[in-house]
Amino acid sequence: MNERLVLGADVGGTSVKFVVVDADGMSIVDGSIRTDVADAGSTFALLAAEVASLLNGGTVTAVGLACAGIVDPVAGTLGRAPNLPGWEGSDLRTLLGAAFGPVACAVANDVNAALVGERHLGAGRQCRDLVMYALGTGVGGGIMIEGRLVVGARHGAAELGHVVLDRGGPPCSCGNNGCLEAYAGAVALAAEAKRLSGLPGADPDLVALCARNEVTPHVLAQLAEAGSAQVIAMFHEAGRRLGQAVGGVVNTLDPERIIIGGGVAQAGDLILGPCRVEAARIILGERSKSIPIVPAELGPRAAAVGAAVLATEEVVAR
Amino acid sequence: MNERLVLGADVGGTSVKFVVVDADGMSIVDGSIRTDVADAGSTFALLAAEVASLLNGGTVTAVGLACAGIVDPVAGTLGRAPNLPGWEGSDLRTLLGAAFGPVACAVANDVNAALVGERHLGAGRQCRDLVMYALGTGVGGGIMIEGRLVVGARHGAAELGHVVLDRGGPPCSCGNNGCLEAYAGAVALAAEAKRLSGLPGADPDLVALCARNEVTPHVLAQLAEAGSAQVIAMFHEAGRRLGQAVGGVVNTLDPERIIIGGGVAQAGDLILGPCRVEAARIILGERSKSIPIVPAELGPRAAAVGAAVLATEEVVAR
Repeated sequence: MNERLVLGADVGGTSVKFVVVDADGMSIVDGSIRTDVADAGSTFALLAAEVASLLNGGTVTAVGLACAGIVDPVAGTLGRAPNLPGWEGSDLRTLLGAAFGPVACAVANDVNAALVGERHLGAGRQCRDLVMYALGTGVGGGIMIEGRLVVGARHGAAELGHVVLDRGGPPCSCGNNGCLEAYAGAVALAAEAKRLSGLPGADPDLVALCARNEVTPHVLAQLAEAGSAQVIAMFHEAGRRLGQAVGGVVNTLDPERIIIGGGVAQAGDLILGPCRVEAARIILGERSKSIPIVPAELGPRAAAVGAAVLATEEVVAR
Repeated sequence: MNERLVLGADVGGTSVKFVVVDADGMSIVDGSIRTDVADAGSTFALLAAEVASLLNGGTVTAVGLACAGIVDPVAGTLGRAPNLPGWEGSDLRTLLGAAFGPVACAVANDVNAALVGERHLGAGRQCRDLVMYALGTGVGGGIMIEGRLVVGARHGAAELGHVVLDRGGPPCSCGNNGCLEAYAGAVALAAEAKRLSGLPGADPDLVALCARNEVTPHVLAQLAEAGSAQVIAMFHEAGRRLGQAVGGVVNTLDPERIIIGGGVAQAGDLILGPCRVEAARIILGERSKSIPIVPAELGPRAAAVGAAVLATEEVVAR
């Protein structure tokens, strides 16, 4: 067994996805365990036991942890984390040390970690300036400038789902109106689908889907591909709103490329096509108008992979 | 005469403002010359002669140049520059060398340079993460992260006037609708003042001002201070729109503070008050809601001062 193994783990509200990589970044094992949303320490103990069992006694020399929430990567602590209520305010680095022993640790916000993963092994290879949107239940973001993650002076950076695109727009989970998340997050799309299904002349397939309460980005994309004009128009509007946000972020940061991930991004060009048109219309710099706006490549593993990369960098920096 | 003198110059469409500083950053002389918008080289020759005359034969060891437009600070070239039509595509560094001899040179976008000036001697002292809005004729921006200017992969970053706040909003000079510049630039405010003056029951003072074609941010601010409800409401709306933009940029970059400069910013709390309220409403991070949103301190000299700072850093880096 290789002596320099690194664990990357991505903590979500339901499960912890993990991957163990060797010194060359090749995946040795991966898996997942249940998240105890009330207790970070017991979750880490379970994770350590599971990883030790999979490695047949091999041990990891570094641990990278990605968490949905406001993470202080220097202090190693977790702030606001709506999906992990019992973890808020935790000293993640100390708790990881208790579970894994004296290993090098890196902690990061989950979308930041996903961006690092995409940069090393996915859609952001060879780039130093990147912006990523994660269109999940909500909408998260990650920003990298000159190869470094932008976390912000108070760790509040890259909340790209909460840029207000129309202050008279639909209500957002944050309490404001017209945020990107209120147009392009999975919850927002499901709400819009339900609204559309109640209109006179609604697509019968959409009505049936909403009646069965089975509205996910995936099945909505299938309806669109089957030709539902209503659902196609809905994705186009989400794409245009995403493009408005992307146009603003390119005029702000002018990165090399924009990566779009998360479940909603599985709608592909249904959403990315109108996004590209709208962004190009808004982007000021002539050469920036053709910025690549590309789908993420690593899927749900991105944050665990990126967390392993961050932990490896932590070892190198020591 | 101190042997290490540095020139900072800010090229606008009408004049070149300049300052010469000593090794301690103290201003030795300052002044301005006319810009030849058709020819960068002849402007630099005039600038070199004027500076040499003021220094009584003393010479500068470094030159920093700030220009409105898309500047490549590494190559030292100027791209799109609507106010300097004959300068577009110029190799500024080579032309500066021809005028000033073999001196160290730094070139930068004008708002970026102003941000550097504010950071060293003005409203951004002690900060490493800053965002600046320059509310002039149009609206420009500057971004600094970890002490470094963000210029973008294609030098198109920090165009903060062209973040779209409402795609159904008023037309902008860039061809889009609802950009920040279309709400908070001096041209936009003058157009809005004119529209208001044509409404039934318009403020007679505002009507008289518009009839005399004397609408500037300064006189509008005076009308507001004299109690014109219409003009106060106009500044408040501009402030709310600025706050919407600031809220978005804080959720994106979470800098230490936001600096607001340019002529429109002379309206002070008329515009900054509503800006702060709206930004706090939008900002997601609890600790970031109270981010200082402060007026610039250096006034029209900021970019020349900042250009001198950049040139001094260029000497140090050699």
